[in-house]
Amino acid sequence: MSKTIKKLAVLGSTGSIGQQTLDIIKDFPDQFRIIGLAGGKNTSLLARQISQFQPELAYSPLKFNLPEKTRFSSMEEMATHPDVDIVIVATSGKTGLAPTLAAIKSGKKIALSNKEVLVMAGEIITAEAKRHQSQILPVDSEHSAIWQCLNGEKAEVARIILTASGGPFYHRSPKQLANVTAEEALKHPTWKMGRKVTIDSATLLNKGLEVIEAHWLFSIPFEKIEIVIHPQSIIHSLVEFTDGSLKAQLSIPDMRFPIQYALSYPGRLANPGLPRINLGRLNALTFETIDYSMFPCLQLALDAGKKGGTYPAVLCAADEIAVELFLEGHTSFTGIAEIIAETVSSHQGIANPTLDDILAADDWARDTALKFTRKAKICLKQ
Amino acid sequence: MSKTIKKLAVLGSTGSIGQQTLDIIKDFPDQFRIIGLAGGKNTSLLARQISQFQPELAYSPLKFNLPEKTRFSSMEEMATHPDVDIVIVATSGKTGLAPTLAAIKSGKKIALSNKEVLVMAGEIITAEAKRHQSQILPVDSEHSAIWQCLNGEKAEVARIILTASGGPFYHRSPKQLANVTAEEALKHPTWKMGRKVTIDSATLLNKGLEVIEAHWLFSIPFEKIEIVIHPQSIIHSLVEFTDGSLKAQLSIPDMRFPIQYALSYPGRLANPGLPRINLGRLNALTFETIDYSMFPCLQLALDAGKKGGTYPAVLCAADEIAVELFLEGHTSFTGIAEIIAETVSSHQGIANPTLDDILAADDWARDTALKFTRKAKICLKQ
Repeated sequence: MSKTIKKLAVLGSTGSIGQQTLDIIKDFPDQFRIIGLAGGKNTSLLARQISQFQPELAYSPLKFNLPEKTRFSSMEEMATHPDVDIVIVATSGKTGLAPTLAAIKSGKKIALSNKEVLVMAGEIITAEAKRHQSQILPVDSEHSAIWQCLNGEKAEVARIILTASGGPFYHRSPKQLANVTAEEALKHPTWKMGRKVTIDSATLLNKGLEVIEAHWLFSIPFEKIEIVIHPQSIIHSLVEFTDGSLKAQLSIPDMRFPIQYALSYPGRLANPGLPRINLGRLNALTFETIDYSMFPCLQLALDAGKKGGTYPAVLCAADEIAVELFLEGHTSFTGIAEIIAETVSSHQGIANPTLDDILAADDWARDTALKFTRKAKICLKQ
Repeated sequence: MSKTIKKLAVLGSTGSIGQQTLDIIKDFPDQFRIIGLAGGKNTSLLARQISQFQPELAYSPLKFNLPEKTRFSSMEEMATHPDVDIVIVATSGKTGLAPTLAAIKSGKKIALSNKEVLVMAGEIITAEAKRHQSQILPVDSEHSAIWQCLNGEKAEVARIILTASGGPFYHRSPKQLANVTAEEALKHPTWKMGRKVTIDSATLLNKGLEVIEAHWLFSIPFEKIEIVIHPQSIIHSLVEFTDGSLKAQLSIPDMRFPIQYALSYPGRLANPGLPRINLGRLNALTFETIDYSMFPCLQLALDAGKKGGTYPAVLCAADEIAVELFLEGHTSFTGIAEIIAETVSSHQGIANPTLDDILAADDWARDTALKFTRKAKICLKQ
């Protein structure tokens, strides 16, 4: 265990991953110190976090009163602050894109939970990370598992196998799916997560984003990335090597595992607060081949990833709109895939896009998704 | 993949592991060359192996005709031959002890399958390996799994969890066990192995030897080594780190996996001849807490390992006698544990034994086991 305190900026501290990150950090005051906290609109929670961790810098999109020692700042400023070692990007959607890129250009380590950063701009992000020797540390159970399995391996990888719980609707028919409510979709069988990612897990679009993320994180072609249904969410992913041997990483499904691993890497921290697996009492671990026809959002995401260019950004933006409409009761569960499909299919992609191209595609996709929804009267209520 | 050909001596080439080792080597003529082959009493098989691999040196306990280019030698000579890089110790029982020690003192890499070497003389072997910078590469599915999971890890290990299929009699009552035949005991549910190790797997004594071996190989205290029943033999073992995260290694149960990994380490070799796991078609992976009271041989082995000194050598020798008596129909399946228990309990252990002390304890144990068997009339036939 290193004696040097790691200095952190936490972007998105009031979200689900942000809160769990602080939950770990508070238990290891000798290991970590927080320089900056950037929260969302929940300023009362952010204020409590600031009083607990006393960061130098804080940010929220809303103004609020700060204690004397803390200065109002921007995400970019804290992400590039000379004292900061690791920037934890726990924002959602495209919010994390600009500060992550700024942090990379300052050579920081990036603990990345905000998967849209790599999905939307994987080519730019990985090229800049290479140029500035900035290491991207995955904070997602699947990618953390793959990363742990690759640790120390000099051999070529034959396949990466991402596990998927299948979400709450795995065995439902397409007909049944048309009528599921937001309340039902928000009940994930194994993971406790934010609302947006929980819906993306029910449509399995999230698994498609993870495939794209894995492609960029581990420089692995799409044809070597597979998905297998594993309803228990105990094995978080597997790597198959060229000899046919596989390595897997296992834990109780709890996001604090991948968060803590990214923060403590290359070491690990003894954390009695994290739940332990008792293999003898574990239910059987099962696996099923995925039926892609049941999950049109997953197929849309994989197709967008393979097309590359601005397509993944369009997919993400259309999905964000569609999930919001679904959560607010304006479209059905199956409407999510329809909105995305329509938006992606009318997009004129740009290859090797700049960041501006990507952000323009994002804007275009949001407009297009909303227009299509109104035109097709997919909306249930006005 | 290294361009340098690794030069090998294979001790025990006519046994089950030896044959599978040659099966791998023949497929990679650019990677491996055999300098020496030492077989057992099956000289016709050994002759075929010699004509196929054309080694410089050969050995068998029986004399036989050699081709012109091959010279009759000893296991010690080939294990210390200046050209040899890796000595594959696939002998059984105490046979491998002296040549392994000689190879270690010559600074060779040891691919170790003959587990009695570490069980009987773990303290001497590991101390000499350290002194002579000789690396011991495990050739056993469980230890290879642990080794692979530890690869690249800088963190402390919380637990090593060895998986055990439970053997062919896992759910039988002690009464039923008294009447099982050698034929039944030789039918292992998942692994194809030699006769002795198959019986040791049925009594689970083999799992106890593996615990002792893991203790020495990975310098890990006995209280951090656990056993879990995993009837499918797909997960070959697991390592739990201090953060509560586990890594596991998986493959179809086939000894060629750990053999090839030891030979190709630190790389891996693409071998289309090895069977692949199709997770979607895999049966459920299950785990059960082990019931020690059902497996007295396992408890005897663990106790001997913890006592240390000459006790593990006595255990191995008594077991060898007992298994031979069982296979020849001279004692019952449950008699194996009785013979070992009686022998171990009448032993006066020596702490920090020399190699001579260990070999003397082995001799003493063989005599004692036979005497006890005669006296107690455990024998069924004369």
